[in-house]
Amino acid sequence: METIKVGIVGLGRLGKVHGENLAYNIPNCELYAACSPVEEELKFAKEKLGVTNVYTEYSEMVEDKDIQAIFIVSPSGLHCEQIRIAMEHGKHVFSEKPIGLDITEIERTVAVIYSYPKQVFMLGFMRRYDESYQYAKTMLEEGAIGELTVIRSYGIDPKEGLESFVKFAGASNSGGLFADMSIHDIDLIRWFSNQEVKRVWAIGKNTAYPELDALGELETGAAMLQLTDKTIGILVAGRNCYHGYHVETELIGTKGMLRIAQIPEKNLVTIMNEQGIVRPCSQNFPERFKQAFINEEKEFIRCILAGEQPEVNANDGLQSTKVAIACQKSFEENEIMDILY
Amino acid sequence: METIKVGIVGLGRLGKVHGENLAYNIPNCELYAACSPVEEELKFAKEKLGVTNVYTEYSEMVEDKDIQAIFIVSPSGLHCEQIRIAMEHGKHVFSEKPIGLDITEIERTVAVIYSYPKQVFMLGFMRRYDESYQYAKTMLEEGAIGELTVIRSYGIDPKEGLESFVKFAGASNSGGLFADMSIHDIDLIRWFSNQEVKRVWAIGKNTAYPELDALGELETGAAMLQLTDKTIGILVAGRNCYHGYHVETELIGTKGMLRIAQIPEKNLVTIMNEQGIVRPCSQNFPERFKQAFINEEKEFIRCILAGEQPEVNANDGLQSTKVAIACQKSFEENEIMDILY
Amino acid sequence: METIKVGIVGLGRLGKVHGENLAYNIPNCELYAACSPVEEELKFAKEKLGVTNVYTEYSEMVEDKDIQAIFIVSPSGLHCEQIRIAMEHGKHVFSEKPIGLDITEIERTVAVIYSYPKQVFMLGFMRRYDESYQYAKTMLEEGAIGELTVIRSYGIDPKEGLESFVKFAGASNSGGLFADMSIHDIDLIRWFSNQEVKRVWAIGKNTAYPELDALGELETGAAMLQLTDKTIGILVAGRNCYHGYHVETELIGTKGMLRIAQIPEKNLVTIMNEQGIVRPCSQNFPERFKQAFINEEKEFIRCILAGEQPEVNANDGLQSTKVAIACQKSFEENEIMDILY
Amino acid sequence: METIKVGIVGLGRLGKVHGENLAYNIPNCELYAACSPVEEELKFAKEKLGVTNVYTEYSEMVEDKDIQAIFIVSPSGLHCEQIRIAMEHGKHVFSEKPIGLDITEIERTVAVIYSYPKQVFMLGFMRRYDESYQYAKTMLEEGAIGELTVIRSYGIDPKEGLESFVKFAGASNSGGLFADMSIHDIDLIRWFSNQEVKRVWAIGKNTAYPELDALGELETGAAMLQLTDKTIGILVAGRNCYHGYHVETELIGTKGMLRIAQIPEKNLVTIMNEQGIVRPCSQNFPERFKQAFINEEKEFIRCILAGEQPEVNANDGLQSTKVAIACQKSFEENEIMDILY
Repeated sequence: METIKVGIVGLGRLGKVHGENLAYNIPNCELYAACSPVEEELKFAKEKLGVTNVYTEYSEMVEDKDIQAIFIVSPSGLHCEQIRIAMEHGKHVFSEKPIGLDITEIERTVAVIYSYPKQVFMLGFMRRYDESYQYAKTMLEEGAIGELTVIRSYGIDPKEGLESFVKFAGASNSGGLFADMSIHDIDLIRWFSNQEVKRVWAIGKNTAYPELDALGELETGAAMLQLTDKTIGILVAGRNCYHGYHVETELIGTKGMLRIAQIPEKNLVTIMNEQGIVRPCSQNFPERFKQAFINEEKEFIRCILAGEQPEVNANDGLQSTKVAIACQKSFEENEIMDILY
Repeated sequence: METIKVGIVGLGRLGKVHGENLAYNIPNCELYAACSPVEEELKFAKEKLGVTNVYTEYSEMVEDKDIQAIFIVSPSGLHCEQIRIAMEHGKHVFSEKPIGLDITEIERTVAVIYSYPKQVFMLGFMRRYDESYQYAKTMLEEGAIGELTVIRSYGIDPKEGLESFVKFAGASNSGGLFADMSIHDIDLIRWFSNQEVKRVWAIGKNTAYPELDALGELETGAAMLQLTDKTIGILVAGRNCYHGYHVETELIGTKGMLRIAQIPEKNLVTIMNEQGIVRPCSQNFPERFKQAFINEEKEFIRCILAGEQPEVNANDGLQSTKVAIACQKSFEENEIMDILY
Repeated sequence: METIKVGIVGLGRLGKVHGENLAYNIPNCELYAACSPVEEELKFAKEKLGVTNVYTEYSEMVEDKDIQAIFIVSPSGLHCEQIRIAMEHGKHVFSEKPIGLDITEIERTVAVIYSYPKQVFMLGFMRRYDESYQYAKTMLEEGAIGELTVIRSYGIDPKEGLESFVKFAGASNSGGLFADMSIHDIDLIRWFSNQEVKRVWAIGKNTAYPELDALGELETGAAMLQLTDKTIGILVAGRNCYHGYHVETELIGTKGMLRIAQIPEKNLVTIMNEQGIVRPCSQNFPERFKQAFINEEKEFIRCILAGEQPEVNANDGLQSTKVAIACQKSFEENEIMDILY
Repeated sequence: METIKVGIVGLGRLGKVHGENLAYNIPNCELYAACSPVEEELKFAKEKLGVTNVYTEYSEMVEDKDIQAIFIVSPSGLHCEQIRIAMEHGKHVFSEKPIGLDITEIERTVAVIYSYPKQVFMLGFMRRYDESYQYAKTMLEEGAIGELTVIRSYGIDPKEGLESFVKFAGASNSGGLFADMSIHDIDLIRWFSNQEVKRVWAIGKNTAYPELDALGELETGAAMLQLTDKTIGILVAGRNCYHGYHVETELIGTKGMLRIAQIPEKNLVTIMNEQGIVRPCSQNFPERFKQAFINEEKEFIRCILAGEQPEVNANDGLQSTKVAIACQKSFEENEIMDILY
């Protein structure tokens, strides 16, 4: 079978995860090129990933005719432009979430993507490729819990992130807690319900680091979502989790409930000590979603080889960002926001 | 030690629970009189509880000088008046929740209660007397999870209730899902946070029984609450639980999370069969809160004997009802409601 | 209904648990007399339990004609004699486990008990009266896990006990780990299986306190039991549990498995902190079996009033002690022991 | 980096698992040849695994000079001979457990293996390469539970296996339940304790299929093991699990307890339905140990490339088989067996 030559842009924390998988764990895939303005990242690509073609300029990498697919793991603000350029150069494109930060620009990008229907475009909503989420989706579709009435989804990052976030406050624009953290949860709500979000109200509280108020940032936030068919969505997002990386999703249906990662168990070990009965937890996204990243990368390569489009498409990127932006605005104004279609 | 003579009014499902405890499980307490318009209930009082003084008229029972305390377990619409009459007759009063259905009437009743400071008044928020809730409160106060940012509380009744609710639709006025089910959760949010609720938005969905729409009733509802200090409250209420009686409360703090009855385990048994690993669940409130009812009844008698007022007071009844009514109105208008103080 | 007047002998740790229940939590029961050679214990009886008739001599207490039932919570070595004397004085008798320490004496005592068939005799195997154990027994009898093939039962005391045990080593004769700790588990195995134990092999290990070797005592021991119908019994007993009081029983059947207290959860609270996901544990037997003690005491009084014999009888005491002694001997000789009937 | 050419012998159920991994999931590994007397298996190798060099005779495959490593997944009775032949032909060898069925032959094979110290030999105790088992080993070595006193390990196959086992009874010689199922548990006990087994007693019971008695086979068996330093080992093995594939290991130490797969959770999903709270379970060994198989295969290839010997060696095969055979003999004679060194 053919081997797909991939060029990656961005080799930060998540970029390294993707890079290592593409280099070593994905059959029929060759990590052929890497692009980054950061010298250390290119050194990593050469020494750890065995990549020989390294670029500091994205515009140069996309000119390489041997590259068939571009993997975008750059800062969120660059996604839209890099997607458009890659599509226009005839590449298949995988972009990390979010597809972009500005609705108008996203809409323009989505139009470009759809104008190249033969090129694969995939967005990095890896949770859909996690074994537990897929099991839940199958059970839902098989009717195990009846019809959906409520979806609750938590995305809470470990406290270490918040500590450095506060330290370097202002240095980066996160897009706000809901765009940064809840976008995965919003995608899950759309995916499980097959509905769009109509109305949202978002609130938040800063307690551990009140200085976040001045930055318009949040330690912990929550949003309630009303979907088109009245299904209820509940989001909790945070950056201050003491037990690790808490991503949990609950589906309440007319005939049962279902929870994915009710507790984010690290493995199958239980320890009994002076604390009581202890289950260790996943500590971060690369640990929790290790296999999901591999699965989505395999799916991207499979789609290219099979001439198919993956399930997660450009419109998913547009709609989830719309909702995240509405949550952020709702929080800022402390009022309900309607989302128009 | 003295034995307190108690008269109970109302011997329906919950009344029978209280009646049996007062008759047999509470030291220093004598179930001396019972009042009900329902013949079967008075028969039960005589034959099962050994009560000799039975009344069909509440106004007659309160005239009995030997009765020191009145236990009100009548329909919610009667609570306010029965409380006032009992207070005016010099009785100590225990009233089931809610304290009433109409804010103006409740305010008047609260004023009456406070004008008799030597008589004990207690409201039936029994969850505060549940061992697990008390353990959680202690841990919170000891700083185990830092300062509160989010409280999520679920109250979902078993589906059997909904089936008969739909069958006899219109026969009774439940006051709506939030007054009927969430009032306990609202009390818990106030109790854990020591804050009042400022703003609410409530939504809901009927799926299993769409005919509930016509009645203005809900299968499943949810509300998001903003408290005075910005703590976030999340309520889910329902009447259609397949696994039993799902009452769960979560506290998210700046240094940890805590859940009470994450899964409503019936006992300490785990079964492993073709279904997988199964934990049986509590099936209804008398089962789940069996000991909590006994604890609150003991506390009521203890307060009378000690000349103290219990922790759960008339104002708790007023404020929780205010919030429940605001949730109901918010749901009806699909808008945020502010609660004024 | 009649109230049964009870005299208790022994008010140590477990005696106090029984004493308080008999005084305050058991309907139709009056704690009328108390006997102990320890002044502090009689003071406790008078001041905390309101007992007016106190004795330092057991032989005097049993002469009191008003006492209808004797509750024996004295040191194990005294049980047999005190049971016989009480029976001969026409009293109903509740004895804590074990029924005795010497098989010949137990057999003589059992004969005495059976010669007074109108007097109630009950042995304190309270686990049979624990809600979770009863639920498990019902499920087993209903066929939920098919026919039994293996029963595993753990009884591991909190480490605090071992620390003081080592400190006061030699001061008391525990009868050995199996008689002291496993006797409840042996009773459960007989109760669940309706079989007798035929062959045992017991081994043990001292690690935390090697000085126990010199005393013939054990930190941790285990025994494998072959029952009459070949059902397999597995015992683990210990005195050095760091997470609390670990009593766990597993039933493996031809159609499923069942565990009672797979983890000895203290209540329904789960805490998530830097340790991970933590379930607090029961810390000691009065906490874990609080309600079971009340249930067995109620059953004792009920049997007296109803003129019935309880399920746990004198023979259960004899057989369980036989097995415990065989385990101890097997451990000492490191050989299989056969138990003859 | 060099790619290792591997030839596999045996493509039954487990052979297919190894074959697919070697073909697709192990970097620096090429599945180059396959050998089987079964036509369907060679067809599978060609069509599904893309293997071009297929053999019906093992003696021919080992002559192929291009093959650097042999992967033995043939019936247990062939392991010893095939290992010796492969070693003598200069191949690196991975053999599935058990290393053999007869102690004398195993001893001879181990001698052969040790006479080729430059060739890698690895035995398929894949549990040691499971993430949860490795986490437990690390915790134990870091002192999290103090020093070991008890190791309990369960290996219970799903009932489907027993049904077909009974159907085709006599067709294959399993070596008995302990050699077939417990050998992994015996290896774990040796691995965790760093001790050898000195004395065993094994018993068993047939209930669901009493006809197994005639075959000398067991539905469920248990063994108690005394290790050199008196650590206690407890084995339960079975072929009749209704909830799936139950492999569980418990370590009891002087400062805590630890369980691996206390319940064999399939994934992170919890379902709440009329059964109660349900965790789905792993259904079979390929599912439960999917990643462990990949990890051990990676380790085998890594050792070849690095010129190292893996942790699991020929002696582990010899000692674990000695213990399994002693358990089987103990069961047959219903007496304690001593294991001599």
